[in-house]
Amino acid sequence: MDITALRNSNPDHWFKAAAIRALTLDAIHAANSGHSGMPMGMADVATVLFEKHLKFDASAPRWPDRDRFILSAGHGSMLLYSLLYLTGYKDITLEEIRNFRQWGAKTAGHPEYGHAEGIETTTGPLGQGISNAVGFAMAEEIQRARYGKKIVDHYTYVIAGDGCLMEGVSQEAIGLAGRHQLGHLIVLWDNNNITIDGTVDLADRTDQVARFKASGWHVQEIDGHNPEEIDAAIAKAKTTKKPSMIACKTHIALGSAAQDTSKGHGALTDPKLIAATKEAYGWASGPFEVPADIKAAWEAIGSRGAADRAEWEARLASISGRKQEEFARIYALDAPKKLSATIRALKKQISEEKPKHATRKSSEVVLEVVNPILPETVGGSADLTGSNNTKTGDLGIFDLDNRAGRYIHWGIREHGMAAAMNGMALHGGVRPYGGTFMAFTDYARPSMRLAALMRIPSVFVMTHDSIGLGEDGPTHQPVEHLAISRATPNTYVFRPCDTVETAESWEIALTTKETPSVLSLTRQNLPTMRVNHSQKNLVAQGGYVLAEAEGKRQAILIATGSEVSIAMEARELLQAAGIGTRVVSMPCMELFAEQDEAYRKRVLPAGPVRVGVEAAVRDGGWDKLLLGERGREAKAGFVGMASFGASAPAEVLYEKFGITAQAVADKVKSLL
Amino acid sequence: MDITALRNSNPDHWFKAAAIRALTLDAIHAANSGHSGMPMGMADVATVLFEKHLKFDASAPRWPDRDRFILSAGHGSMLLYSLLYLTGYKDITLEEIRNFRQWGAKTAGHPEYGHAEGIETTTGPLGQGISNAVGFAMAEEIQRARYGKKIVDHYTYVIAGDGCLMEGVSQEAIGLAGRHQLGHLIVLWDNNNITIDGTVDLADRTDQVARFKASGWHVQEIDGHNPEEIDAAIAKAKTTKKPSMIACKTHIALGSAAQDTSKGHGALTDPKLIAATKEAYGWASGPFEVPADIKAAWEAIGSRGAADRAEWEARLASISGRKQEEFARIYALDAPKKLSATIRALKKQISEEKPKHATRKSSEVVLEVVNPILPETVGGSADLTGSNNTKTGDLGIFDLDNRAGRYIHWGIREHGMAAAMNGMALHGGVRPYGGTFMAFTDYARPSMRLAALMRIPSVFVMTHDSIGLGEDGPTHQPVEHLAISRATPNTYVFRPCDTVETAESWEIALTTKETPSVLSLTRQNLPTMRVNHSQKNLVAQGGYVLAEAEGKRQAILIATGSEVSIAMEARELLQAAGIGTRVVSMPCMELFAEQDEAYRKRVLPAGPVRVGVEAAVRDGGWDKLLLGERGREAKAGFVGMASFGASAPAEVLYEKFGITAQAVADKVKSLL
Repeated sequence: MDITALRNSNPDHWFKAAAIRALTLDAIHAANSGHSGMPMGMADVATVLFEKHLKFDASAPRWPDRDRFILSAGHGSMLLYSLLYLTGYKDITLEEIRNFRQWGAKTAGHPEYGHAEGIETTTGPLGQGISNAVGFAMAEEIQRARYGKKIVDHYTYVIAGDGCLMEGVSQEAIGLAGRHQLGHLIVLWDNNNITIDGTVDLADRTDQVARFKASGWHVQEIDGHNPEEIDAAIAKAKTTKKPSMIACKTHIALGSAAQDTSKGHGALTDPKLIAATKEAYGWASGPFEVPADIKAAWEAIGSRGAADRAEWEARLASISGRKQEEFARIYALDAPKKLSATIRALKKQISEEKPKHATRKSSEVVLEVVNPILPETVGGSADLTGSNNTKTGDLGIFDLDNRAGRYIHWGIREHGMAAAMNGMALHGGVRPYGGTFMAFTDYARPSMRLAALMRIPSVFVMTHDSIGLGEDGPTHQPVEHLAISRATPNTYVFRPCDTVETAESWEIALTTKETPSVLSLTRQNLPTMRVNHSQKNLVAQGGYVLAEAEGKRQAILIATGSEVSIAMEARELLQAAGIGTRVVSMPCMELFAEQDEAYRKRVLPAGPVRVGVEAAVRDGGWDKLLLGERGREAKAGFVGMASFGASAPAEVLYEKFGITAQAVADKVKSLL
Repeated sequence: MDITALRNSNPDHWFKAAAIRALTLDAIHAANSGHSGMPMGMADVATVLFEKHLKFDASAPRWPDRDRFILSAGHGSMLLYSLLYLTGYKDITLEEIRNFRQWGAKTAGHPEYGHAEGIETTTGPLGQGISNAVGFAMAEEIQRARYGKKIVDHYTYVIAGDGCLMEGVSQEAIGLAGRHQLGHLIVLWDNNNITIDGTVDLADRTDQVARFKASGWHVQEIDGHNPEEIDAAIAKAKTTKKPSMIACKTHIALGSAAQDTSKGHGALTDPKLIAATKEAYGWASGPFEVPADIKAAWEAIGSRGAADRAEWEARLASISGRKQEEFARIYALDAPKKLSATIRALKKQISEEKPKHATRKSSEVVLEVVNPILPETVGGSADLTGSNNTKTGDLGIFDLDNRAGRYIHWGIREHGMAAAMNGMALHGGVRPYGGTFMAFTDYARPSMRLAALMRIPSVFVMTHDSIGLGEDGPTHQPVEHLAISRATPNTYVFRPCDTVETAESWEIALTTKETPSVLSLTRQNLPTMRVNHSQKNLVAQGGYVLAEAEGKRQAILIATGSEVSIAMEARELLQAAGIGTRVVSMPCMELFAEQDEAYRKRVLPAGPVRVGVEAAVRDGGWDKLLLGERGREAKAGFVGMASFGASAPAEVLYEKFGITAQAVADKVKSLL
């Protein structure tokens, strides 16, 4: 690369981009770790994007109609932090840049959503950002259809690297974006031909241009260091009705001795290399110094959107008061006032009618009353609509001719679904929920974890939640998946035992603002256990006494979901044998753990034998409940699964794996 | 579809295929569940494949040089079971077909590896089979290069559906196969345009032909009901040097009232529909009856390969005795005799030299001595070779010009890597291991679970196993991933504390035959704890006393991996305060649980306070160890993580999250 020629051909552009490169070198030198090459390679693309196209106002980072910028190649975080600092976002000060990757800094190793305004999503695990972006773009389409182009009309830009495109989830994202012709989605591919192990072709020789075209994308190929080409390509991408991919040929670690090598991917910390690189750039300022004229030029870019934003605010003020209120409410993640009364009314009705529903059906019953009053819900399923019971009558299918549709046929793409759901939640104005079989939590895991880490309320509707699935067999029968989600911090795992608990679980999932929910729902029918209506949401306590012991309390059975009715039958057997037995329904262990100690001790007093019942492995948070957090509270046992399941009818499996009322009663007796 | 015309155009072919279709209808009718449409749609393709191309001998199902047939669309299991029954595999009797999807039957809802010969892999979770197949084909290439074409020269055939191609992992597989020009891999795509939710284009409009071509595949498009076209396409596919995809246009649930509909995907159980369909087929036999001439024709197909097989055996007998022995040994998964002595010698050396290695480096040290004596190991990394320390000097890189290379650059494809590793193990003759960061267990999860379910010894080398990873931050720091793998049945999770334990862990991982291993390894350096050489493999006991209490035993510290040295420091503090403290190293909880009760009680006697130390969440099997399986054994506490990590240098994180010797000592004191 002839750096001098680049510099001279457009010095105005060059030095703005060089500021990103210099800050990157300085921050990584100070941290002694990080990824230098990508920001140095993509600085030109990012500079043109921010300068000429991105609609944003650094002083109003939450402006709902801003364009979104997603750094899918999250290891290049210094690109984003540099841009935020340079354009004047308040959160990213020079001090933060100096503290890159240090304890308490907003400038974490990878961009962390919630650390600073301007970070639209957490990236780092590759392929996530580009897949989130599909959800951002869908949310934009849905809201544009609802509120009109005057109020919602923005683009989602993504910088993705070779790693993002090699991860399988990217194919799911590309397929979805192509299918739905998400014209406001523009992906800038950092085509630098380098990965950690060497050149890309060590592992992949896919023609990415052909691959994107195969899924219906508009594709352009440009020199990623030529500002005119970058500008023209983005301008063109904005006008196509297809999602756009711009293949930007770049040089990783541009201008350094490590340019175009895998060494350049990582941390360039050698002072000599840094000095030589800066010299090549014509960058004479000291570490962390940006000349005032260059900083001023960047700040002008950061305030370029202020007028647009003011006009948008005026337009928002011109729509109906009701619409304005709704718009404000859904972006604030506030539930509509009606929700709580609606849930209560449903609970009352169910307590009286006592239907025998599978909880996946219960979930549909709840959604049927909830979706009409929550315009912000967007539902969907990974090609199991009829099995997940996620579709309700009024949603409409999101499609080319129905952008207002609130139901997404995600296809056989659990991972892409979860990632795009996260994108919708991050975009704002949408509460996404999506369904698959619980065993396929495995496929969606990387994105489910990120929902928890990002503190966003995506709702994962996981049906067929045990051996109760039956004949499809062990590949489709979760046994460890409750444990997996419960082991994940900041995740509510709901396993309701009937329609009433399902309604209560949904109420929490739809009102919480910072925690994703996993709804673990049965395939098989269950009796209504909550036959006495309570105004209060009992699931909100995590666990509660469903049936008290008669006579001396010798045993406490703790059960979830489909095993609550088994525990109740066991209680009958035990009471008949003179053993006073309490049954605790424990639909959400995380919420139970949040209760004060007095409540928890009331529900689980020390002394009586405790037996847990759940058609899953014991490693799912059970021991702490059974044995007490410090031990010695009770003698305890567990009736559940200790192996994978098998293929047979559900009733047979419960019998063969020994998850029966008799087995529970026997376990209690063996412990007494 | 004009079924009569089809029938009349080639009755000989038609009735063989009709036998598959009729058995499918009967079995699903009897089970009252299953997936009818796919076997009915793909019967013609499968018939031609088995009749004219597949190299196999039903009487010798383990013949190492057989072609492999993988039903990636595993829900169509009746296609496979019908073929195995018809061609005369002993395991699949008519009785088994009658017991489809019942308890104890070999004919599970989805094909389960190990249930019956002829089932080459467990499928059902979509995209797995096609991704396994990449590993099968790589293993074949590697062994062909090693033993010659006379001994190893076979194809891997895959039937994949739309679901397989929509799952992201398929893109990883397609990219790998194209990159490595796996010419012996032939994918037959069941292009029926139907998924559960409706037509494929509801969710995807990708041009699959263009997509495969973009990754370097040879592609043909045929009528999947025309036996001549099928035959010609497979013949051509066998001659190309590229991996081949044959797009077979088919009609799901062919000839039934549900043909070409999503209803046809599932269980067709209506007796009238079944009768009408059979009538259209010209199939007059009763349920589960196959006319003798048709069965005989199929059995002739089943024994067609017997002569080939005998010739192959003669060829095998003609190679050197040493090679024959090695060939037999690697297919039997027997370790070479030298392994144990090699590990012992390394352990002795390490105990004396006491290096301060990160356990990822320890792992490399072990592999450096192990790989030269185990020609069956095939290593690799998902683009983190230098970080995972998975590559040793002698392996050679698997590439177009070095098919004998035993190191795979998997690219940024953790899921595809794990699936292909499983395929290698299933193919036989290979012990695969592959590395990534432990946090990306999430990406590989679906295939890691299947390794456990299939009982195959894939080894997952998961480095950077805690907040010890440091600055890359919480997206890259596992906290729940030990819990995830430990909650999975039939999985050994090794978290060694030093190079000696790492060597012992590898010895088990490389000798076990039916259990996958997860090696949880540090980024950061650790002191050698095992300074006294023991001939015995102590990790094989799961946990053991590393340091005994001096004086009265008041506390037991149980720790794993990087926290063992912290526990040892805490012991110093406690002993100094007069508190007799034992330290138990617990590198493998699963193996500890397999020990007899007497041993477990010797290591963890009731009475002393117990404190667990692990830089991960407590939900990872800890409670049972801390509190005892039935409770009341001990007062207990845990020092570990209760949240996601953060971005900062590792030492800072350990301090801030309170995982220090002082915190452990304080915890003990608070419990005494």
